[in-house]
Amino acid sequence: MKEIGIGLLGFGTVGAGVVEGLQQNGKLLEERLDLRLALRRLADLDLDSDRGVKADRALMTRDAGEAIRDPNVDIVVELIGGVTKAKEFIRQALELGKPVVTANKALLAEAGAELHRLAAEKKTALYFEASVGGGIPIIKAVREGLVANRITSVYGILNGTCNYILTRMEEEKLPFEQVLKAAQQAGYAEAEPSLDVDGHDTAHKAVVLASLAHGFPVPMSAVHVEGIRNISAGDISYAAEMGYRIKLLAVIKQGGNGVEARVHPTLVPHAHPLAAVSGVFNAVLVSGDIVGDTLYYGRGAGRRATASAVLADLADAARDLSSGARRPPVLRRESGKLRPIGEIVTRCYLRLSLLDKPGVLALVAQALGRKGISIASVMQKETRVGQHVPVLVVTHSAPESAFRAALAEIDRLEVVGAPTVRIRIEDFQE
Amino acid sequence: MKEIGIGLLGFGTVGAGVVEGLQQNGKLLEERLDLRLALRRLADLDLDSDRGVKADRALMTRDAGEAIRDPNVDIVVELIGGVTKAKEFIRQALELGKPVVTANKALLAEAGAELHRLAAEKKTALYFEASVGGGIPIIKAVREGLVANRITSVYGILNGTCNYILTRMEEEKLPFEQVLKAAQQAGYAEAEPSLDVDGHDTAHKAVVLASLAHGFPVPMSAVHVEGIRNISAGDISYAAEMGYRIKLLAVIKQGGNGVEARVHPTLVPHAHPLAAVSGVFNAVLVSGDIVGDTLYYGRGAGRRATASAVLADLADAARDLSSGARRPPVLRRESGKLRPIGEIVTRCYLRLSLLDKPGVLALVAQALGRKGISIASVMQKETRVGQHVPVLVVTHSAPESAFRAALAEIDRLEVVGAPTVRIRIEDFQE
Repeated sequence: MKEIGIGLLGFGTVGAGVVEGLQQNGKLLEERLDLRLALRRLADLDLDSDRGVKADRALMTRDAGEAIRDPNVDIVVELIGGVTKAKEFIRQALELGKPVVTANKALLAEAGAELHRLAAEKKTALYFEASVGGGIPIIKAVREGLVANRITSVYGILNGTCNYILTRMEEEKLPFEQVLKAAQQAGYAEAEPSLDVDGHDTAHKAVVLASLAHGFPVPMSAVHVEGIRNISAGDISYAAEMGYRIKLLAVIKQGGNGVEARVHPTLVPHAHPLAAVSGVFNAVLVSGDIVGDTLYYGRGAGRRATASAVLADLADAARDLSSGARRPPVLRRESGKLRPIGEIVTRCYLRLSLLDKPGVLALVAQALGRKGISIASVMQKETRVGQHVPVLVVTHSAPESAFRAALAEIDRLEVVGAPTVRIRIEDFQE
Repeated sequence: MKEIGIGLLGFGTVGAGVVEGLQQNGKLLEERLDLRLALRRLADLDLDSDRGVKADRALMTRDAGEAIRDPNVDIVVELIGGVTKAKEFIRQALELGKPVVTANKALLAEAGAELHRLAAEKKTALYFEASVGGGIPIIKAVREGLVANRITSVYGILNGTCNYILTRMEEEKLPFEQVLKAAQQAGYAEAEPSLDVDGHDTAHKAVVLASLAHGFPVPMSAVHVEGIRNISAGDISYAAEMGYRIKLLAVIKQGGNGVEARVHPTLVPHAHPLAAVSGVFNAVLVSGDIVGDTLYYGRGAGRRATASAVLADLADAARDLSSGARRPPVLRRESGKLRPIGEIVTRCYLRLSLLDKPGVLALVAQALGRKGISIASVMQKETRVGQHVPVLVVTHSAPESAFRAALAEIDRLEVVGAPTVRIRIEDFQE
């Protein structure tokens, strides 16, 4: 049986999962592929820590370059993370014409176009299933399963940490900071949580999905990003009363005016399948012009789920290598039309901090009205005359630019006690 | 650009959808594939009816064999349905070494092994994404996306007609017969509904999924099949009170004792993602030993959704043909171990029709107890002394054979007014 040699860079959590997966199901993969995936080199700076999985010491090296150049290595798997070194290693492998499998969304978001271009030049390919949605085969679904479709929209819950925090805030009616701390203690959030809770990780994945769906590199700078720090337990329960659940969504839409890509907390109707995605799970709703709505759900992170995706890419890469098949490029154009964030139109939920006295709401309504924003409903849950109380306003649809202008004005009003919190509402009507 | 010639057999609903899809997104497919999919022949007995899509009359023929043999046809698409003729045509194409794309689950369930074997002999392949789950790329997900996983279980809502009927029965509290009639009038159910409502269509799809997941042909005779005719509006509302929704599920599980495959109405906990799948939508929950739970959701039928899957298969077939890549066989073994239905263990919901008088329930409890079945809860909603009333019993787990023996005994009791309705409960604990 033909053997394909693998050089694995990064023996961390996911790397150990890949080694473990190969040991557990290597025989099954052989049967299914008619090929043997053989681990030939394993590079990491730390050769000594116990990863809970056996690895042949003779394969190990501290020198990634050595693993990449090894003539017995046919495919390079990059799992070291980070941007600078990872990019250098991937470039080295591609320069040698070796296909690369990577889970590195941060790198793809920053330099995906450059790396895909280099791969095409060198007549090889970059595989990246594990970069979005962990074990969910979402890249394959969009790229191959829906290949006949123009992708009209993608809505994704793509960060397990944020979804876990929002789920616990709802279930236990606790504030963000407290749930974040518990999540950090439980190992569901990093000590430095910004990458997750401020939306950057979701934005990296949005860039990967948007670029794939539309065939041109969507830059990070084109993605509007907001995280979940400003969401209060109150917002979650007010939203619930109105029939919504708050989720951090990546939204990618193709409209007449180009592609829009944004990441922000969003009110999702309770009955919508995305509202039912709880805890660390991820889900992606992909709509195509022929197929309609499709949804994909599973574990978005973790050693084993991510390893499953890396191994699926290895299988594809090995089959392609063995048959000489070349995948057509992911990016078909240098650039494409992007819709500026100011033009996007949504309904919004506003939490205003207003002085509890007559006539105050009229000032707010006037400021909104001057920018063409009309109010659908108002809810005031407390009364404390002469003090600031939360007032919840749900608006009809209006452009982003109108909201910004109106809220800048409102937040300058003397009767406003704190900056207004605005959360977009998604009703999933095209 | 390289052109791949397509011969389409069957210009019915899905066939017209495929022609329409090629017209709508042919240019996009070309860009994505670096190949042109060219419709070269179109065979149907009816050349005159208007399908709402333009087709070049010069490509059309009443003779499927002519389309198959045409040297300009590289890939044959079988969309005529039925078993005898379709099988003959697929065999003809495979004999010529031409890859075949089919949506025909009934044929695959009956003769999949034979056709896959012939394809392998002739060094070509049979593609069947459209046979299960309509536009959901579920075959690709199981075969490629989860290739590194032993598939531990598959739970599918695979028949849109049944799911539509159950959803409307619940929403409108109407009996089966009435909703079926409305569904027939609305075009959601066939005039001859047995294939759908008696579970056979779901069983065909279960056979396709089970054979793919486990690598050996699972015969139809190994699948236990029950439909939804015996479900009453009462069952649906009793189940709802207990926190469940009733779904027609295909269940495929890999246990120590082999593979079990069954199709039956099932009580699914409200909070489970499958419970949220309503109307004509399909969903499949696939669990792998590495990835854990993954779920796939979308339109399970219809002209455009199914065409999306056929076109995805055409893209794969064209890429394989163009590169000379050969897919490893779907079936790796001639046969495998199947678990007899009598051995499967579930909890059950029982709706008994019992004479309303003291001591009757004790007789039922004794009959269950003698077969080792213990009762978790009992609910009697009505009292009509001296008459038969529905009594709902939820049991703990017991083997199928015990239920059959106990119910045979119970249904012979004089105090029982009608055969007991039994619905299995699935708690999704492995």
